[in-house]
Amino acid sequence: MPARKPKMPAPNETATTCLPPKGVLIAIGGHEDKAPRPGYDEEANSAPDSILRRFVDEVKGNKNILVLPIASEEPEEAAKDYVDLFTSLGAGRVEVFDMQSRQQGQEDESLRQLEEADGFMFTGGDQLRLTALLGGTPWLKRLKERFTHDEIVIAGTSAGAAAMSTPMIYQGRNNQGMLKDEIHITTGLQFMHDVAIDTHFVARGRIIRMAQIIATNPCCIGLGLEEDTAVVVRDGRELEVIGTGVVTVLDGQDCTDTNIHRIPAGEPFTIRDLKMHILSCGERYTLPVQEELHR
Amino acid sequence: MPARKPKMPAPNETATTCLPPKGVLIAIGGHEDKAPRPGYDEEANSAPDSILRRFVDEVKGNKNILVLPIASEEPEEAAKDYVDLFTSLGAGRVEVFDMQSRQQGQEDESLRQLEEADGFMFTGGDQLRLTALLGGTPWLKRLKERFTHDEIVIAGTSAGAAAMSTPMIYQGRNNQGMLKDEIHITTGLQFMHDVAIDTHFVARGRIIRMAQIIATNPCCIGLGLEEDTAVVVRDGRELEVIGTGVVTVLDGQDCTDTNIHRIPAGEPFTIRDLKMHILSCGERYTLPVQEELHR
Repeated sequence: MPARKPKMPAPNETATTCLPPKGVLIAIGGHEDKAPRPGYDEEANSAPDSILRRFVDEVKGNKNILVLPIASEEPEEAAKDYVDLFTSLGAGRVEVFDMQSRQQGQEDESLRQLEEADGFMFTGGDQLRLTALLGGTPWLKRLKERFTHDEIVIAGTSAGAAAMSTPMIYQGRNNQGMLKDEIHITTGLQFMHDVAIDTHFVARGRIIRMAQIIATNPCCIGLGLEEDTAVVVRDGRELEVIGTGVVTVLDGQDCTDTNIHRIPAGEPFTIRDLKMHILSCGERYTLPVQEELHR
Repeated sequence: MPARKPKMPAPNETATTCLPPKGVLIAIGGHEDKAPRPGYDEEANSAPDSILRRFVDEVKGNKNILVLPIASEEPEEAAKDYVDLFTSLGAGRVEVFDMQSRQQGQEDESLRQLEEADGFMFTGGDQLRLTALLGGTPWLKRLKERFTHDEIVIAGTSAGAAAMSTPMIYQGRNNQGMLKDEIHITTGLQFMHDVAIDTHFVARGRIIRMAQIIATNPCCIGLGLEEDTAVVVRDGRELEVIGTGVVTVLDGQDCTDTNIHRIPAGEPFTIRDLKMHILSCGERYTLPVQEELHR
């Protein structure tokens, strides 16, 4: 767009006044491979070339990892596989923060875990649990500070990935989102802005509900993550696709029309000239910079 | 919270890496006084001590004002009163940008109007028209740049106020929002972040639907603007209340519990320890800084 609008500075000119985060995000589309592949050699502590192995490889420092089963109704079960796998993959200390109340978001022990961790893993479950329990707590504010200033790695799968960015889709019923207002959106945990992440994307046919999110405000980029597929995000906007499936990118910034503002709830919405990219392992994508310098 | 969490830097320490905007916002709760009051003297070009007079007074430079009836289904009617009143209040040139398609968001004429205006007035209507038509367009990106770097004034009333911040509530049916998922939220125009603005707030009894927005992510501050009441916002977070009614502030950051993540759609939600302030003309409020340095 800057090319068409000479008066507008190039995105990079306006983005530099805000620090890019030093932290790395790994957003996973759910059902990532947790099983050693053929050729796995426990002695050598090698491991499958999987998304979770990449996560452990990315974690710096003491490789202390904090597993966060906050989105899950069965946190112990949700955490167990990760604790075992990360340990087998050569992580340092692996701890679990099972948050059941907002009060825990300001307790010294949970903040101690946060300060000592180099990597964070948000499990699946219900993303609304993540925003309702963590939103506005000292724990989350401190994690955002560390994400901005420290080389930590924050991974999330399924609900844990959907909550990473804002806007965040949440939807009890797993419908198609073809009709206006079938979907629900709220503010996510905001490690990325103007990015809507959806998961199990191909398996559950979620492209239409993603398109409705974008129709309501085409400033947002949609990231549809298939199962066992992830994006590694550096500098807040440089994406690398990993895993066995595809990542679908929906870009509505140049869309020419939508009826979402003209139809009543319950009617099918339309949108024209939505741009779509389908990317697989090794491919890269740079999120567009939004001209928002202030908070 | 910093007091309770010594490890956390004070908000101002972390906010300074992002520029505060030079622009001023005036968010109006709808039905603002447009009639001269007793004692109005046309000769002296004086005017009622109203919200709209304050808007014109705040506009610098040539006092060129651009009226934006984009949210309205009847843009001519929506714009007319403002054009006449602003002219009578001593504005410079008063123009109208009636956007009916996203294409107009990249046309030279609309960008020329944007560059030459010192004040912007978004009328009422449907806020979803504002995000669906303006979101992601070069016009909006350029307005955000000007808001950050230039001493412009952006006013909005009713839908024009609701769309100013993010998250943005939109809701065809004017229900109470007591039941989960009765409300709908999307990304607003983002002149403020983590602030949800609702209007006609007392007249239409909208505090419950605002509380539900906050329950879904308590990082957000709710601003409920009554009719003929407004907040003047400087530096992106310093609020001054003006007008004849009250502004209701809902702060959920210290809320202790909500069931929004535990109940199915259609059931009544709960939230505990939501903080509320009711402010009237002349009172001030500073929005809390969220620890988000990057975009």
